[in-house]
This record gives sequence, structure tokens and C-alpha cells, in this order.
Amino acid sequence: MAENISKSERPLILVCNDDGITAPGIRKLISVMNEIGEVYVVAPDSPQSGMGHAITLNNTLRTDKVTIDQGPQTEFSCSGTPVDCVKLAVNVVLPRKPDLCVSGINHGSNSSINVIYSGTMSAAVEGSLEGIPSIGFSLLDYAWDANFNDAAPFIKQIALSVLENKLPHGICLNVNIPKASEEPYKGIKICRQARANWEEEFDARKDPRGRQYYWLTGTFVNYDHGQDTDEWALANNYISVVPVDSDVTAHAMLQTLNTWNFE
Amino acid sequence: MAENISKSERPLILVCNDDGITAPGIRKLISVMNEIGEVYVVAPDSPQSGMGHAITLNNTLRTDKVTIDQGPQTEFSCSGTPVDCVKLAVNVVLPRKPDLCVSGINHGSNSSINVIYSGTMSAAVEGSLEGIPSIGFSLLDYAWDANFNDAAPFIKQIALSVLENKLPHGICLNVNIPKASEEPYKGIKICRQARANWEEEFDARKDPRGRQYYWLTGTFVNYDHGQDTDEWALANNYISVVPVDSDVTAHAMLQTLNTWNFE
Repeated sequence: MAENISKSERPLILVCNDDGITAPGIRKLISVMNEIGEVYVVAPDSPQSGMGHAITLNNTLRTDKVTIDQGPQTEFSCSGTPVDCVKLAVNVVLPRKPDLCVSGINHGSNSSINVIYSGTMSAAVEGSLEGIPSIGFSLLDYAWDANFNDAAPFIKQIALSVLENKLPHGICLNVNIPKASEEPYKGIKICRQARANWEEEFDARKDPRGRQYYWLTGTFVNYDHGQDTDEWALANNYISVVPVDSDVTAHAMLQTLNTWNFE
Repeated sequence: MAENISKSERPLILVCNDDGITAPGIRKLISVMNEIGEVYVVAPDSPQSGMGHAITLNNTLRTDKVTIDQGPQTEFSCSGTPVDCVKLAVNVVLPRKPDLCVSGINHGSNSSINVIYSGTMSAAVEGSLEGIPSIGFSLLDYAWDANFNDAAPFIKQIALSVLENKLPHGICLNVNIPKASEEPYKGIKICRQARANWEEEFDARKDPRGRQYYWLTGTFVNYDHGQDTDEWALANNYISVVPVDSDVTAHAMLQTLNTWNFE
């Protein structure tokens, strides 16, 4: 594998996230990518968690060149969603189409069904739709000062593998990493998305004028006992890698639907 | 098929959309559903197009009982996204889990890759995750005064078929309907999602203070010539029905990834 990429052929890497451009997770991802290539950051100017694949249709977008730290990367903050950031990066900001798009490191899990709510993963999906090999990285630790260091060597490995092997158009990788502990990570496991759900609960409150309002809360329930799932891998201290398809057709269901009598 | 459902066994139907509770598309869908069952509407109080699977994590949610027309349905407007509406409906508003969740009728196409940006379809996906047979309906006509009448009998047929046959947990239907014309619709076609893309362009402008801003615009490009796709069906005046899976694993890619050497 091309561990040492010479200056002249350094790949162009786009870095995005959904926690906002100043989040420690993206700062760590930028520092790892600086070891591999020439880095452009185009990331939201404010937290965009749970934005899914939202795009900004009814409002304007702005992007500003910023300097957050002393690294060699070029950075832009953006007023939009994570998907807006990728679209703006590719069409307005970057000198050419990047060789790799990485999103994260998300503060918190994007395994299983979380993939469809996640702004981090939607940025990676959007990258794959632009024809860019793309990866979303998430750490199972919501803390702002989470330990991203133990994950760094694996993130670098996976990024180098994707640069070498490429990915088909419209397919990206969803990488989740267990919370760091004294036990070292066991390695990387290729997985399918576990069938799991959020059982939400709404926390009902009254505002100072007596009107009801709600906070969305919930509990994650994994009802998939397969040992080939991302949830199993993560519970067993593996880093999970799920290939994600932007073709959401339930192909196995096509035959069944053709037996229905629509009349 | 149970065309005539008696009062006592009338199904409970949740209606949602992303264009907002007063949009003509949802008003038509409500009137069709009133012929089938007991209808609850929980829909956004403002347009939410392009919101994808966004949920409201960093803000409060409100929902208010409203009366928009003289129909028998019960209606609530909601401050959140289409997915928030479905979650609030199931957990707070409805007397029990509904037998059917329908979303739309969207003003504009949600065929092909539009499915992942669409708030209308994300509401249906969320319904399917709640274990409710769910359908998103969209008309290929952005006009506010579009002709939804020709589509109505097909919408009723599809809804009755789903009530009769149910759908597996986590799978919903994406129904798109050609713009009404003098030629009657040819019928219903079960399809896969066409591989297509948006080639976006950003319209760059200066605000009155001289600062740059952008509007997201773009062109839809279908590069999939299959006659089994939704794009083909719609171009040939068929109503397209694509089963949509909330498991986004690219299963065919798992084997390939297991040949990669992550080191």
C-alpha cells in the first residue's frame, strides 16, 4: 500500500462534518488527513447533528475562508447543512474534484439506523454521488473531549485503502469506532447495518406562558442478533465498516409487489 | 379487495407531507384517505422541502390542533420536520398506532435519487421504521394549482393494496405520478430507483453590503437507461412504485471489501 505518498502526487482530500468546523472530532480528522494529502476543509459554521440529507433550498448559502489552527490545510466555514458543504466544496471552493471525501470524526455513533439521520454520513453519501470515494467516521463517545487518538491509526489505514482501491459511484463507507478504553481495538470488521430502531419518547414541558412544548428523546433498541452486524462488531471492540448504497431500492421486494393486484 | 370498509373497522390513517399542512397536495391526499378510513393529519406548519431525514435535536417542538377545511379528519400542525411529525404523531398525538401512514402528495418529483433529499419520502421511511405500512406520493408538477384529480383513483388503489397486503418492517413505497395531461395514465409499474444525479450549479450573487452569497440550483441527469426504472416508467406515463429500504447496506459490496488489506 502507498503509505508514503510523495509531495507531487499528494491526493486532494475534502474534509467535512456535522458537529461544526471547530469540533475536536474534525480537528483530529484534519490532522490525520494532513499526513496523507492536501487538505481542504468545508464544514458547517454551527452544529448540524441530525440534519440527515437536508439541503438548503429556501435560503441563501455563505462560505468564508477561516483559520482555526496552524495546520497546512485550507479551511472554509459554511452556513448550510453537511450536504450543502460537500456541494459547495465541489462546485465552488475546491481547485478540482477531490480524490477523497472524509466526514467526521462524529462525536457519537452513526451505526445501524443512525446512518439515515446523520449529517456526517449524509455528507459522505453526497460525496459518493459526486463520484468521490467517500468515508464517514464516528466515535461512540459523545464527549467533547473524547479520546480520538487511539482511532487515528485505523482512520489513516482505511483512508489509504479507499484511496488505493477506490469505491463504486454512489457507494461510501460508514466507519464507527468504539469508545476508547484500556483494551486496544481488536481490528477492522466489514459489516452490514444492524436492524435496530429508536424508541422515542417526548419530554413534554410548559413554557413560561403555559404553552406545551416537547423535546425529542429516545432509547436505541437493537433487535438484530447477527454477528455480521455493525452493532455486534462495536460491542466486541472492533471498528465497523459498512458500505452504504445511495440506491435505496428494496430489490428483494420487487417480485412480491409484482404479485399484488392493484385494482 | 376490501373496497368498502365498514364504519366499525375503518383503518386509522396518518397523513403527513413536507410542503406544509395547507398545500393543495396534502389537502387532496386527505380527501382521498377520508374515503378509506379515520384520518389524522400531523404535518409541518411551514414548507420543509429538501429536509431529508432531518430531526430536531437542538430545539423544541410544538404541535397545535387546527382546522383547515370542513372534512371529518383531525388535524395538527407541527413546528418540526416531516420526520418529527411522524414521531410526534405516533408517540403523542394519535390514539393508537395507525394502520397506514401516507405522505404527500408532494408538489414535484421524488423519483430516483430525489428520494434521499425528500422530506415527503423521509416521513414515509420513518413510518416504516415505526412498523407502519407507509407510502410517499409525489406528482411531477411543481405548480401550486397542479391537477391532482387524475392521480386520485390510483392513490386510493395503492393505499388499499398496502392496507390489504401490509409491508415488511422498514420498507415503504415511493410512488411518483406523471404530470396530468390529456392522455390518461397507463397504469402502475413496479420499478427500481434509476441511477441519476443532480449536477448542481451555484448562482453566486452579492448582497447589498457587497458580500458573496449563493443559491443552490442544478440539473437532473438520468444516466440509467433501464426500462425497469422509475424514470423510464414516468417518461412513459406510468405511475412508478419503488419499494424503499431503510437498510442502506450495499450488500453486494461486502465481499469486495473483505478482500481489502487494511494495513
